[in-house]
Amino acid sequence: MAGGGRAVIFLRIFFPLRHSMGGNEYTEHCFSGSLSMPFPIVRAIPVTAPPPSLRDNTGDLDRLKRALLPELTGVPPLVPQARLAAVAAAFRRAGFTGAAIVNDLAGLPQLVDFLPAPPPSLPAMALDLGTTHLEASLIDLVHGTVLARANRENSQIRHGADILSRIHFAARGDGLTLLHAGIIEDVNCLAIELAKAAGLACGEVRALSVSGNTTMVHFFLGLDPHHLCREPYIPLVNAPDPCPAAELGLAIHPAAPVWLLPSVGSYFGGDLIAGVLASGLDLGEQTSMLIDVGTNAEVIVGNREWLIACAGAAGPALEGGVARMGMRAGPGAIEHLAIDLETKAIRYSTIGNARPRGICGSGIIDLVAGLYLSRQIDIRGKFRPQATGERLRMGDEGWIFVVVPGEESADGRPVVLSQVDLDALMRSKAAMYAILTTLLNQVGVGFAELHRIYVAGAFGRHIAPRQAIVLGMLPDLPLATYEPVGNSSLAGAELVLRDGAARRRALTLAKKITYLELNVNQEFMLRFSGSRFIPHTDRSLFPSVPFFEGE
Amino acid sequence: MAGGGRAVIFLRIFFPLRHSMGGNEYTEHCFSGSLSMPFPIVRAIPVTAPPPSLRDNTGDLDRLKRALLPELTGVPPLVPQARLAAVAAAFRRAGFTGAAIVNDLAGLPQLVDFLPAPPPSLPAMALDLGTTHLEASLIDLVHGTVLARANRENSQIRHGADILSRIHFAARGDGLTLLHAGIIEDVNCLAIELAKAAGLACGEVRALSVSGNTTMVHFFLGLDPHHLCREPYIPLVNAPDPCPAAELGLAIHPAAPVWLLPSVGSYFGGDLIAGVLASGLDLGEQTSMLIDVGTNAEVIVGNREWLIACAGAAGPALEGGVARMGMRAGPGAIEHLAIDLETKAIRYSTIGNARPRGICGSGIIDLVAGLYLSRQIDIRGKFRPQATGERLRMGDEGWIFVVVPGEESADGRPVVLSQVDLDALMRSKAAMYAILTTLLNQVGVGFAELHRIYVAGAFGRHIAPRQAIVLGMLPDLPLATYEPVGNSSLAGAELVLRDGAARRRALTLAKKITYLELNVNQEFMLRFSGSRFIPHTDRSLFPSVPFFEGE
Repeated sequence: MAGGGRAVIFLRIFFPLRHSMGGNEYTEHCFSGSLSMPFPIVRAIPVTAPPPSLRDNTGDLDRLKRALLPELTGVPPLVPQARLAAVAAAFRRAGFTGAAIVNDLAGLPQLVDFLPAPPPSLPAMALDLGTTHLEASLIDLVHGTVLARANRENSQIRHGADILSRIHFAARGDGLTLLHAGIIEDVNCLAIELAKAAGLACGEVRALSVSGNTTMVHFFLGLDPHHLCREPYIPLVNAPDPCPAAELGLAIHPAAPVWLLPSVGSYFGGDLIAGVLASGLDLGEQTSMLIDVGTNAEVIVGNREWLIACAGAAGPALEGGVARMGMRAGPGAIEHLAIDLETKAIRYSTIGNARPRGICGSGIIDLVAGLYLSRQIDIRGKFRPQATGERLRMGDEGWIFVVVPGEESADGRPVVLSQVDLDALMRSKAAMYAILTTLLNQVGVGFAELHRIYVAGAFGRHIAPRQAIVLGMLPDLPLATYEPVGNSSLAGAELVLRDGAARRRALTLAKKITYLELNVNQEFMLRFSGSRFIPHTDRSLFPSVPFFEGE
Repeated sequence: MAGGGRAVIFLRIFFPLRHSMGGNEYTEHCFSGSLSMPFPIVRAIPVTAPPPSLRDNTGDLDRLKRALLPELTGVPPLVPQARLAAVAAAFRRAGFTGAAIVNDLAGLPQLVDFLPAPPPSLPAMALDLGTTHLEASLIDLVHGTVLARANRENSQIRHGADILSRIHFAARGDGLTLLHAGIIEDVNCLAIELAKAAGLACGEVRALSVSGNTTMVHFFLGLDPHHLCREPYIPLVNAPDPCPAAELGLAIHPAAPVWLLPSVGSYFGGDLIAGVLASGLDLGEQTSMLIDVGTNAEVIVGNREWLIACAGAAGPALEGGVARMGMRAGPGAIEHLAIDLETKAIRYSTIGNARPRGICGSGIIDLVAGLYLSRQIDIRGKFRPQATGERLRMGDEGWIFVVVPGEESADGRPVVLSQVDLDALMRSKAAMYAILTTLLNQVGVGFAELHRIYVAGAFGRHIAPRQAIVLGMLPDLPLATYEPVGNSSLAGAELVLRDGAARRRALTLAKKITYLELNVNQEFMLRFSGSRFIPHTDRSLFPSVPFFEGE
């Protein structure tokens, strides 16, 4: 986000989210998820109420509520008007015995359905509401299993590739309405896809949790995002109350609670709160760090005592920035790559072992690190024509390096890395390292003191931290310090569906995090400049990385 | 209500509700209404929140909620999704200072609007949802004043004159939908009329309280009334949770809370709970009684320690039963009437001093008492042709007594009382006295021990208790014991709008009342038989009434 006279750092981060290609890829990362599921957002509570009799005038629903009291620790559940007739009819039909479906809304029980028997599953949808991509999972709140996963492009892209252009679009005519309707439709498509994959009807999905950046959440709720990009950059709401799905026009069960991860401010959204939840950063005795790189770069450091965070305001999203060769992780994307230091031959692997179509984030890191180590680029990130041989050629906007010739690629066009792309990566990696050092300096903690560095997003899932260290993007620490947490935004969204403790943690966290404004920070600007070399102007910071002088 | 093999007493009560003809007729009766208004259902809370700044990331609504906490005793208000954008926009527009509109929903604060300054009034609508008629008032929750009153016929009558026929209608095709839509439309018409009378838009009405019998409340909420008239006569719900007006399709403010007086059972509705509230029966140290006669006859006796109640299940409503001469209180209705014991001349007064069109409840009581005292009817309630002179003539179904000849009436048709009408009145008055005595006997309290007898409904507003005593309808007590409370259903509905203590009292009351089932009560049947004479077979019960032997 940029605008309003604000100093904006363009972090053209090259590491788009890797999408799950199916299966349970994320399960391994939900390491702080509770399998005991003490308090899911929707529960089926087995209950038998006394049948009606002449000696007891109590109404059906009043009897049902009374019978539920012990399970609800004495708090009578509310029945929304829209569910009144259905619940009452179902309770009668079931002969006053069965399972009550009870939502937990901000600590308040809400009785929304009655089934003749406890259901075999209670499907709930977790959603990572990304600026460019949406990722979702359907989890069963009864058994804690993942029933399905799905992802799709954020169709708002047609109204603006990045957040800032969408905020401007929202201000025009019915722009906000279009953006809101677009994202709701996307979520509905995902819900239908998930339900279908699990052999369910969409209306059987009983809850939705949403983890997104602050602007996306504003669009999702139909809130005017005008002030998000204007000083003092204050959201209309950071912690919206949960609401029934029907009120947002969602196609899942009309009474399904929609629970939104709270945000801390315009630049620090619920997706990061979800990341903290998933990493368990807020529970640790030792200080750790969470790095999340999506369209923006966001970093949180802390422990169970304190948490401090900062986020880099990004410019246009990756897709526009590196159109020439960058691509999302998907079939044909070069995921990993190695350059032989002597022969300079390139070996690569692609997702799905398909013919290459482009390079995704992890591949680019490998490529640029390899180019540096094989001395085909210099410490400023500029091509060295004398060392590259035939792969380098001059294009309209400068040098172009051919990674894969056209005859090997999927579509006959070569996969290339241009000097323009390389310059963008250099800015991104510089910004990332500057963010990390500035933040740690502010809290008086050295890198060596960090117990763990959790790396979230596709960046963390597929990247080799070693190659990022070579580039000077991540600090030169033992590789064991780095722990990938995958799509922690989605993992956190799953956690809040599963457990009331996670919902409470999320709300507490959002109030507890101190947010450091980097874009008005002189120290950051200085550190940014020093980081625009491979690995860094201060060689002592990266003892493990070879340094090639005098080029 | 009748049906399902149940012994049904036909209480063709002759005392239809008297409608307010405008003005503040009921104000005098809200004697337990609090003018200090400690906790209205909607409040405008003046609030100034800190403006947004770079040093505080708190979202607008989060800041507003925080600023409201002291006034809401630490309970953060919920903002419903449907109001989120509007409240946020209004709060910004107002420069973060003004008045928050906060609903009190089942003890939970709900933030639904923001105004630049505390509003001059907060209009709220109280509704007496009668089977045949709806009465409503618009009260200002800021100053406690009555802004307007209105009434109209319940348009459901087109689907059934009485409750039982409407319950049967509801079971056919889209019957329930039609009944629900009909009553919502009626309420909307009343709301529009009230708002217009007060110079407001309908959407400015900020709350609605509804006091109705259990069946009417089921129709209002769109709930299937099937089981209300079938043993064991259990409602779907006695205490429905409040809901926003928009969810019921009401035309008032979409976020206006709709608060329904709870019922005790099928035969004891929220209208009676409202009556107890309005009379203060539940607050008294001494034992008192509340008699409410609308379409049914309902009686409650008790004090602040205990409350016991019973209701007489009525047959077809008055309109059908005494079509020949009975009419609702309205212009041209004979309201009071006296018969000269010697000349037997009849003097009468009509509502609005118009030419007579019929007789309303209070006029009929006066007429029959006068006929008895002038010995034109005997103790069985049968005409004595030898004593009536020219006014009596034989019709198709028996004797007809001409109260006003055609030449004096409004439409040229005589106003008459038939023997059939008279028989119906005798059953009604017998049922009423039998109800009162059975109930008191059950609790071991004598009439003389009653501190007050509150008489509610039109019955209580216009009737002369003395004439009702002559008929043996009410016990022979000093007239000072009787205290009219008017339309206590409406008065109670006003109270719950005004004060949270009344709302809590209503919910407590509904659980506290013991309901006595009269229709399976042998004692009642015996007492009913003994009461079918004027004043009673046991003369000693009515020492002040002349008794004419040997006729």
